[in-house]
Order: sequence, then C-alpha cells, then structure tokens
Amino acid sequence: MTHPASREGDLGWKEDERSQPRFRQLARQMIDRKTKPPGSLGMLEEVAVRLAEIQGCLPPVIRRKRICVFAGSHGVTGEGVSAYPAAVTGQMVLNFLSGGAAINVLARHGGMEVHVIDVGVDDEWPEKLLARPGFYHRKVRPGTRNFFRERAMTTEECERAIEAGREQVRLAATDGIDVIGIGEMGIGNTTAASALIVSLLGFDAEAAVGRGTGVSDAGLKRKTEVVAGAVKRHAAAAGDPLGRYWLEAVGGYEIAAMAGAILEAAKARLPLVVDGFIATAAAVVAFALEPACREVCFFSHRSDERAHGDTLKALHAEPLLDLRMRLGEGTGAALAIPLLEAAAKILSEMATFESAEICDAL
Amino acid sequence: MTHPASREGDLGWKEDERSQPRFRQLARQMIDRKTKPPGSLGMLEEVAVRLAEIQGCLPPVIRRKRICVFAGSHGVTGEGVSAYPAAVTGQMVLNFLSGGAAINVLARHGGMEVHVIDVGVDDEWPEKLLARPGFYHRKVRPGTRNFFRERAMTTEECERAIEAGREQVRLAATDGIDVIGIGEMGIGNTTAASALIVSLLGFDAEAAVGRGTGVSDAGLKRKTEVVAGAVKRHAAAAGDPLGRYWLEAVGGYEIAAMAGAILEAAKARLPLVVDGFIATAAAVVAFALEPACREVCFFSHRSDERAHGDTLKALHAEPLLDLRMRLGEGTGAALAIPLLEAAAKILSEMATFESAEICDAL
Repeated sequence: MTHPASREGDLGWKEDERSQPRFRQLARQMIDRKTKPPGSLGMLEEVAVRLAEIQGCLPPVIRRKRICVFAGSHGVTGEGVSAYPAAVTGQMVLNFLSGGAAINVLARHGGMEVHVIDVGVDDEWPEKLLARPGFYHRKVRPGTRNFFRERAMTTEECERAIEAGREQVRLAATDGIDVIGIGEMGIGNTTAASALIVSLLGFDAEAAVGRGTGVSDAGLKRKTEVVAGAVKRHAAAAGDPLGRYWLEAVGGYEIAAMAGAILEAAKARLPLVVDGFIATAAAVVAFALEPACREVCFFSHRSDERAHGDTLKALHAEPLLDLRMRLGEGTGAALAIPLLEAAAKILSEMATFESAEICDAL
Repeated sequence: MTHPASREGDLGWKEDERSQPRFRQLARQMIDRKTKPPGSLGMLEEVAVRLAEIQGCLPPVIRRKRICVFAGSHGVTGEGVSAYPAAVTGQMVLNFLSGGAAINVLARHGGMEVHVIDVGVDDEWPEKLLARPGFYHRKVRPGTRNFFRERAMTTEECERAIEAGREQVRLAATDGIDVIGIGEMGIGNTTAASALIVSLLGFDAEAAVGRGTGVSDAGLKRKTEVVAGAVKRHAAAAGDPLGRYWLEAVGGYEIAAMAGAILEAAKARLPLVVDGFIATAAAVVAFALEPACREVCFFSHRSDERAHGDTLKALHAEPLLDLRMRLGEGTGAALAIPLLEAAAKILSEMATFESAEICDAL
C-alpha cells in the first residue's frame, strides 16, 4: 500500500534546501548583540532563532496571522464517550461563523483571521452560509464511522481530509500569511486523539485517556475501554506507514486535515502553531509520516487534558504556555501566536549594544 | 517607630468596601454561560473573575495599559556582585527613553505606554531629557548605600521612593489606565531582592541568590556571602514593621517604589501586574506591610532567576507565563498583560449558550 504522504520524498525538497543552519547562526549572533544579557529572554530567543531559520529571513517577519479551525463529527460518540451531545459540533461551527466563540474572541484580540473548515461535520448548512468568507465546505462525509466497531475512514476519505488541510496551507502561503495556527472542533475527538497516542506512541489507554470536555467517572471508564478495545481490534491488520494506518483506523477527519496542514507547512516552510491535545495528536501522525515536519511546528500550550503533557514530552516539544486550558478550537494557538510575533520583533526592533552605546567595557 | 505604610489602616478603606465577592460570583456565573465547557479556559477564567472583582465591574474592561519601569543604582555593586558594570543602569535608562530596549519593543507590541521613573540612578540627564514625556525624575539619591557595610537608605529616603511608586498609580488612575505593569532596571538589584527574600521569607542565602544578569561562579559565591553577611549584620537592629525595616536596610529605591505602587494599587483597586524576581521581592515587602494588597496583583511569569519560583510559591502566587526569561524591565509584565485583556474579552465578547442557541439538552 503506497500512501501519498509516505515516509520519504513526499515533501518534494532536497535536504540541502530544507536545512537552513546559516540563518540559525546569524539570528543567534544578531540576538546576542541586542541590549540585554545573553539568553535573558529565554524561550523568546529560541523562538526568534527558529522563525529566522524557518522563514530563511533575518529578521523574521510576522504580519498576517491566521487560525484554521477544522471541524468534524465522530461516529465513536455512539459509544457514550463524551460529555456533550454530538450535535454540538455543528452548533459550534455556526457559533464560529457568527463570531461568538472563544476562538473568535481570542483571534480578534491578537489580530488574526479565522478560517473554519468543515471536513466532516454531521450537519447541513444553509446556502447563504456556504458562501460566507472564511468558511470552507470540504465535508468528506457527515462524520467518521464508529472506530470501536469498524475503521473510522477509508483511505480515499482520509486522503481527502489530508488534502483539505494541505489546501489551507497553500492558501495561507498565497495570501501572504506569515504564521498559521491549527485547531479543531469535534465532539468525541479526544477519544480519537487518545487512540492515536496509544497506537502510535505506545501509551497505556489509562494514561492516554482524559476527561475531554468533562466526562463523568463512568464516562471516563467507558472511554478508556473504547480506546483500549479499538486499538486492540485494529492492531491485527496494522499496515505501513503506521501513521497513515492508524489515522484511518481511529482518527478523525479534522485530525487528518491538521496532519495534512503540518505536512504542507513543512513543504512551504510556513511557521505553524499547534493548538492542544487533538492538534498534538495530529502532529504525532504527521511526525510519524515525515519527521522533518517538526521543524516548522511550535507547540502553543500544555493543556489540562490528562495525556497532553506526556504526549508533548514524547515529542520532545516544549510548549509556550501552560494555562490549564482544555477548550481546543485553536484557542491556545491564538494566545501563543502573539509570543511568536514578540520574538520576531525582538530581532527586528531592539537596539544593539553598539547602536545604544552601552557599556564599552563588556 | 511608626511608618506611614504600617500594617493596619494605611490603605484608608473599610473591609466591607474592599471585598467585592458579589462581582466574583456574578463573573463566575457569567463565564459559565459562555459557549465552552465549564472551566475549559483554565487560568484565563480565574483572571477574568479576579478582574471583575478588582474593578467592581462586569464585564471587566481593559483598554489603556501602562508599564512603569523604576530605575535605581545600588551601592552594593561595590562588592563585585554583578556581571555588568553599575554604569549600565543609567545607559539602559537612556535606551528606554530612545525606545530601543526589550521593554519598549514588547510594550509597543501589546499596545502599552511606558513610563520610566528614575528613583535613584547614579547618573545625570541632559535638560532636554528631563522634559521627555513619560520620563519621571524622582531621584531620591544617586544610588543606595552599600548595604553590606551600612543601611541602604534612610527612612526618609525610603518614604520618598515609596511615594514615587504611589504617584505612578495615582497618575494611572487619573489617566484612565485599566492595568499597570511594574518592572525595574538596576544593576545589583537581584542582590537586594535576594537579601529581602532571606530576611522576610526566611530563605537560606544559598537558595535565595542566583546569577542575576549572568554572574560567574566566583561572583555567585561572593554574592551569596554578601547577602548572608548583610542580613546577619542588619538583623540585630530589626524593628517593626519588618517589611519596612528590611526595605530600608537592604532594599533599593526602585524596589521601594514598586512596593509603593502595589500598596497604592490596592487602595485604588487598579489591577497590577508584577514582573519578575525583583518586582516579586517588592511584592514580598508590600504584602508584609499590607496583606490585602495581594488582591490586586497578578504575577506575570516565573523567571529563570534561581529563587523566583520558590518566592512565588511562598506567596501562593501562580504565574501566568514560564518562558525562562530573566531580563526584568517589565518584560514579563508586558507579555502577560495581553492575557489579562484576553480574559476580560472572554467575558465581554463571547456568546452564551442561550444567545448561540447551542444544545438545549445541556
């Protein structure tokens, strides 16, 4: 079985084009001449250096910013794994489109555009909504199949969802977007994300499953059984590449789309900010398919969802924020992107010791 | 010995005016009707509720924001405790006024004004600089005395420095500022801050002293000796209130000013964001003098300076950010204030389940 997003060669670049250590070194030198003790801006300095390296540009520039919220419904909600009814997914899409959701508020606050992409919501939209700017109707299917009983999606469906994510990154590049944040909406998708963590990172189901939007003790127990059972069921037929196999078996359309966005961001060298637990599960898939795509990813925050901290550790990813958030929608990404901007501005706007005539003695 | 900022009665309010639990409760109710699972915005929700309580206003409002950078020189630099020459303090004040320092960049990024207050810099300024908007010439003395050998300041000097901080908060209130951030510049001031932590919180000198702007191993050893020796020297004469005694004995003019700002912010019920280690030491002093002033304080970040994390713990303070920064100047506050704004906007801009017609079943 050959998948478009296979382990090698898919990104269409050569090694020497991809790695830009020269910019890393130049950015480091530039930052060390700024009027501050070396290293004293901590992670902000590391972010600045990485932005220069990704963009191949010194100083790095962040002007236009966009959050892409991928939405999809999940057949596994039929197993009673979520605190909210499955219908909330569609209702929240309408909320995004009317500007009243948390992601709208936080994106406006940070001067970011919001795109909403329906990759698999089990709901229909009025004609006038379909024409709404920023709304992308890329529904693969009205929700995945129940992965506790059967494969969540077919290979062709998965490919279409991945492509919806890739499309957003190409669009961002065309539109002159300098940084993209990825988030999601999908009642049931912490269950899918947990199943991906179990299957691809080898976590125990108990350690991988958390309360999501706030499931009860009984719900948590059921959710853990569902995840453990599903992974056991699908493990028998596991094929290569594993990232793609498990994405199809237990993933979600919005997770596939986010994985596609990460793969395409690496190709386009577009800095991408990963939101919370679900988006990180998409990163697990993308990194399994193409390890090099981690180079363009920033992890926005450590969420309050049980397994997120350990998942980030497994990826050797250090999140920028830790505010005990667990909402999704891209809200963590929207709060973190201003920190990327701040980091870029340290390089572009701060005086140097020479220009400020500070302390010849140093 | 009676000090103006004594333990009781100084703030000029009565208990029933000060506590506004009604707004806390109303804000909590308001936030729980927003279109998100309860509690899912984590610390942002707590910040929103606290802002409502402090401002006595629902939803809370943050429009104008200001960072006050208090600068002072330190006689204790004569003991070789710092990685940078003492002259850098004055040079950095000029850098602040020309807009090239990290705090200028980060404050501009977040749409904040910057005030620079010379409360004790060992430098003189050209006439034209003194008239610069946003520059406050409140020099108590060109630097504190060397507190390893004698008391850092007199009671009258300390009072003038505290007053310079209080003045900035009154000015902020008059100017319609909704949140104020406090930060500092003063080569040698991690030594003063460590001495305050040792004397007021009972830390061991070894645990309280860190590398500041980047002192060598030998410098760290010397700095620890200086802090331990100074606290031992001054402990003999320790008088009441302790916060005020130790501030005069081992503090700095900029630290006194920040303590004054905190005391006055409590009186004015103005949300105040504490920057890093030095500003937190000022909070230790202010909280010792008037425990209730903690109600208006937000702690911006956990800095990389050795004792900051433990100091925050001792104050039961949970910082918003943890970016391994250790620059001071108010840079942590400048990065955290946008999070306060975001929190306020959650209350003012987000749709409710009712308004968005989401999920009657809940």
